[in-house]
Amino acid sequence: MTGLRLRDLPTPALLLDRAALLRNLARLREAVRRHGVALRPHLKTAKSVEVAHLAAPGGGPITVSTLAEAHHFLAAGFRDQIYAVGIAPQKLDAVAALNARGAAVKVITDDLEVARAIAAHPGPLAALIEIDVGEGRGGVRPDDERLPALAAALGARLAGVLGHAGHSYAAFDAEAAAAVAETERAGLVRAAERLRALGHAVPVVSLGSSPTAQHARSLKGVTEVRAGVYMFGDLLQAQLGVGSVADIALSVLASVIGRRPERNAVLIDAGALALSTDRSTAAALKDFGYGLVVGEDGAPAFGEAIVTRVWQEHGLVEAAAPLPFDRLPVGARVRVLPNHACLTAAAHAQYHVVDGAEDRVVAVWPRVNFW
Amino acid sequence: MTGLRLRDLPTPALLLDRAALLRNLARLREAVRRHGVALRPHLKTAKSVEVAHLAAPGGGPITVSTLAEAHHFLAAGFRDQIYAVGIAPQKLDAVAALNARGAAVKVITDDLEVARAIAAHPGPLAALIEIDVGEGRGGVRPDDERLPALAAALGARLAGVLGHAGHSYAAFDAEAAAAVAETERAGLVRAAERLRALGHAVPVVSLGSSPTAQHARSLKGVTEVRAGVYMFGDLLQAQLGVGSVADIALSVLASVIGRRPERNAVLIDAGALALSTDRSTAAALKDFGYGLVVGEDGAPAFGEAIVTRVWQEHGLVEAAAPLPFDRLPVGARVRVLPNHACLTAAAHAQYHVVDGAEDRVVAVWPRVNFW
Repeated sequence: MTGLRLRDLPTPALLLDRAALLRNLARLREAVRRHGVALRPHLKTAKSVEVAHLAAPGGGPITVSTLAEAHHFLAAGFRDQIYAVGIAPQKLDAVAALNARGAAVKVITDDLEVARAIAAHPGPLAALIEIDVGEGRGGVRPDDERLPALAAALGARLAGVLGHAGHSYAAFDAEAAAAVAETERAGLVRAAERLRALGHAVPVVSLGSSPTAQHARSLKGVTEVRAGVYMFGDLLQAQLGVGSVADIALSVLASVIGRRPERNAVLIDAGALALSTDRSTAAALKDFGYGLVVGEDGAPAFGEAIVTRVWQEHGLVEAAAPLPFDRLPVGARVRVLPNHACLTAAAHAQYHVVDGAEDRVVAVWPRVNFW
Repeated sequence: MTGLRLRDLPTPALLLDRAALLRNLARLREAVRRHGVALRPHLKTAKSVEVAHLAAPGGGPITVSTLAEAHHFLAAGFRDQIYAVGIAPQKLDAVAALNARGAAVKVITDDLEVARAIAAHPGPLAALIEIDVGEGRGGVRPDDERLPALAAALGARLAGVLGHAGHSYAAFDAEAAAAVAETERAGLVRAAERLRALGHAVPVVSLGSSPTAQHARSLKGVTEVRAGVYMFGDLLQAQLGVGSVADIALSVLASVIGRRPERNAVLIDAGALALSTDRSTAAALKDFGYGLVVGEDGAPAFGEAIVTRVWQEHGLVEAAAPLPFDRLPVGARVRVLPNHACLTAAAHAQYHVVDGAEDRVVAVWPRVNFW
């Protein structure tokens, strides 16, 4: 308990609904558990020790996206980490230093020169080969001719293979998501089998994204699943079948700072900085602009009012149906549900934790932002 | 001197070129000085005391966009501030408390109920009426019938009028920008004259945006100009005639983390969080994606390579002409010039200050992020 009431929070402020968070954690944990594989939550969305303890109870394993997260979560007792962004060689000293202090932070690469640098580094290191399972971001393809050379270069420091089906963010029904998940699984397993046929052990076969973790029908041959944004959910994930709009745990509390009855709009004090300029839902089934506006208690209150435009500290709220201006004086407070939780959360230093519609802040949880 | 070399900085990192910053400050200061009016720099872009001392020497006046900035700059000796975002009544206590401690922070409003709350507040407050000079964000129009009632409600707390020609961000030549500037000036002066005819003093007539501050031909009747992003410049401002690409003082230092020769692309460790997802140049004469990629020393090095796609910690760099892969191994370092300096800077906790192409960090300047 903080003694703070929601109504007393200065705006804009980042809210995290603990009840929704716990529902989301349980839902994905169960989806992964039925496959009998490990869940390695990705902390890039939450960047919070308190969330990490809920999502990865018992101290891990976890996934991180920055060295700042790696340090922060190690200090909180999370030793078993994968740093799931292709490593630049000048960062190997920092990772080896963490491992020398008791961490087991694995790095990833798809580059032969980097693999050689990992193998030659004097400190304790282990690496996964990044596999491109169809998104076309990082990684070598499962059948790429470079795969054996990468494994040979890593030698005893090869810990396994890792992929991420980021293209699942365009799979708007369970059938399509399941198909992407199978491509992800099959690609990773194919890469692992090629390496095993060459005599490598390949203990870790790691894949995941929130949609594929939720919708995968088989994870045969996989050892662990990574996912992150499922913890909070957002307006894109809800359209990808990862929770629903009612399950979105993250929101931005904002105040009305101007009224435009003649154009059926209000201005709020949450703009590009408080909401982010992410437009993920522009390519989704339903476009929510920069976010969906709901009541101060988190319940739907204004039809489908959305933030249609942002400036640094201003957001313009518009709606197809007439806005209830009697309930929207300057000073009135609303919540904005995010398009993309990872980016909206990153705009804030901490979470004000609430429980459903109750008017109290039950905790303040800091984030480990920056690098 | 920090003893840090640029080549030793972990990436991604925010760089600020002091030489370019000083050029940009001098250029706009001169543009405003020739009109004989005051410059009230907007610190929403820089959010840095060190930059404030350079941009507003002698302790102000300044403009701020958050209460966090107001506190921070007051502590550094900047008493005379305008908090240039429409005020919500629940924030008046905080502003009055600053003023009671010796600050002179003026607020702005366009709302009658808020004007009454300002007048009735027991603490020291002064307010400007926000005038809409054509952008259609906040403010009443210069001829709006509500203007007299707003002034009457504020009474002795009326300090003047304020407008911002944000629509100057779509004026891509000096002629068009000058026309917007004249609309901005004429609107503000018209509002001030209406109020003076009613017996109000209206000592402050405040307007500005970087493009109109740079291109205005007359500021007759204006008392002060506000502008912020001109300090750093960016790829949009360069197209608006506010400095050039060579004058952009802000950049993100990034490392190559993956290579895609088959698609003439590399991945860097600066993505949506380090660059922001701002796409301001999408509507400009030239679209730079999520930023223009130049050499580690800040000089053009890769033709017109730009960041075409971002994920949380990944940026995809592509170019029309073949990329020089011999100079882009994994670990190679580049700078990314921003689309929109305000949003890119906001993604970072501090500036690493450099001087042109020299390989040393001459200072580290913190930012006052969040609210």
